[in-house]
Amino acid sequence: MHQLQAAGRAVRAMAEWAKQLAGIKGVMLDISGVLYDSGGEGGGVPIPGSIEAVEKTRLNCGCYSTHAHVDMSTAFAMIKASGLKLRFCTNETQATRGKFVAKLQRLGFNILVNEVTAPAPAACRILKERNLRPHLLVHDDLVPEFDQLDKANPNCVVIGDAADNFSYKNLNEAFRVLIGLENPILISLGRGRYYKETDGLKLDVGVYMKALEYACDVQAEVVGKPAKMFFQSALAEMEVEPQQAIMIGDDIVNDVGGAQQCGMRALQVRTGKYRPCDEQHPEVKADGYVNNLAEAVDIIVKQLHK
Amino acid sequence: MHQLQAAGRAVRAMAEWAKQLAGIKGVMLDISGVLYDSGGEGGGVPIPGSIEAVEKTRLNCGCYSTHAHVDMSTAFAMIKASGLKLRFCTNETQATRGKFVAKLQRLGFNILVNEVTAPAPAACRILKERNLRPHLLVHDDLVPEFDQLDKANPNCVVIGDAADNFSYKNLNEAFRVLIGLENPILISLGRGRYYKETDGLKLDVGVYMKALEYACDVQAEVVGKPAKMFFQSALAEMEVEPQQAIMIGDDIVNDVGGAQQCGMRALQVRTGKYRPCDEQHPEVKADGYVNNLAEAVDIIVKQLHK
Repeated sequence: MHQLQAAGRAVRAMAEWAKQLAGIKGVMLDISGVLYDSGGEGGGVPIPGSIEAVEKTRLNCGCYSTHAHVDMSTAFAMIKASGLKLRFCTNETQATRGKFVAKLQRLGFNILVNEVTAPAPAACRILKERNLRPHLLVHDDLVPEFDQLDKANPNCVVIGDAADNFSYKNLNEAFRVLIGLENPILISLGRGRYYKETDGLKLDVGVYMKALEYACDVQAEVVGKPAKMFFQSALAEMEVEPQQAIMIGDDIVNDVGGAQQCGMRALQVRTGKYRPCDEQHPEVKADGYVNNLAEAVDIIVKQLHK
Repeated sequence: MHQLQAAGRAVRAMAEWAKQLAGIKGVMLDISGVLYDSGGEGGGVPIPGSIEAVEKTRLNCGCYSTHAHVDMSTAFAMIKASGLKLRFCTNETQATRGKFVAKLQRLGFNILVNEVTAPAPAACRILKERNLRPHLLVHDDLVPEFDQLDKANPNCVVIGDAADNFSYKNLNEAFRVLIGLENPILISLGRGRYYKETDGLKLDVGVYMKALEYACDVQAEVVGKPAKMFFQSALAEMEVEPQQAIMIGDDIVNDVGGAQQCGMRALQVRTGKYRPCDEQHPEVKADGYVNNLAEAVDIIVKQLHK
């Protein structure tokens, strides 16, 4: 009986957010924890139903599908009917966008580099604009993103999800650069606490950002979610207004909270780093909670075709 | 002319704090950055004048000197005259107290294990009292301090200055223990930001404490300076009241601020991690600033014999 009541409440709750989908023109997807769980030999494992969910969104969007198994005539017919736009918005900084997208394609996802908004290219623009020469504390595979920048005699520190590169030696080196600057500038590619890999939870860049903030008594400038400017540039790339877009992510603070602060609606998926206590988060309440991306896309698409 | 004026101000400022030494019965010394700079092959290098300064304090205190080159009859005569007590109060957690003191003795310091208040023994008492089984993220050389404790199936994390043990893997392991606990307890052996070794500044335990606090959304319990309870136990061991004791340290927040919060007076030495901007710290103002321990002890001893 209790279970039935709970199920009833869940359906009602689901119906509530679905009713508010009117006016949605764009869907923004987080990647890690929503499309796939990263880690392990192949670089990760798709979350069941997510490959198909991306396809389903494409069938309702203006995106040109590159995969042969999608029926193009159906796709174009549905685009005309809905005009839904799709964008991927990730804080992934363990590889260049190119490498990252290639991995996702290998896993079966229909996704292109220019559909992805990621922190490193955004940081590069900022560094160039402000004539900053970065000391990098990032994953080896991300270094090529910064190839065009002068890195001699650094006047700032850029920190990304460096994973095993977060050794005591490397963190100490970044600290010494920062503490030696008259005006210490710390740029962090995200402020996430942790993410889920196939073998468990892993500490994310935000944790080391906090460490350096405390060590040097500075406040980092965050590029990436939940920074407003980051969501805004993803929206601009989608060409939709915040109130016309819905974010789907597994991080209650950085995905859901960040998108909402920007005027978007946001759903939390119960995959990736999701934990049940997220639904009672003291500061952030998602517009809806769904079991996974497949369920979210099902509901959104159904609602659009009503 | 400017230099002369500055020198005049320095002398006046020095005289000010010296005048307020009436009633001092105990001197509490920080070790790293005050007695010596740690690191390098021999484990560190004494700060010029500090070995003699410790001796000089002993000549004015009730401590029995173990070194032959101290003139005992003079010492006892002066003890009767002053009754000054001496205690070492350190956040050192890279080795057991025994190993640490042995190193200081090798460097030439007249110091005994039972004169030293350190965080690890204090933490052990707390863990026992509360039936806590720690997961340790500490320096290998500190592990023996926790030999008597049950560490199977941990229900808390204890973090010390682990230096190179602060690898991504180890920090992630501690994080997973914490995030898996229903009631996550993080005990930190200090909250220092950094310290100075012979080859430069090094990140201290507080930085990694902040990292884990942020990752798990918890607040650490700090054992060690600047915790009030830690200073209080050092005062109890000295058998003097807070207002009768003066702390000498190189850390404006943890030594000076911590001691003052406890009702003690405190001097900052311009050695170790001292930086000129410390003298304009927004929250903490030392009762006096001195070039080094030798100068501090000179002034204290002179004042006592006036």
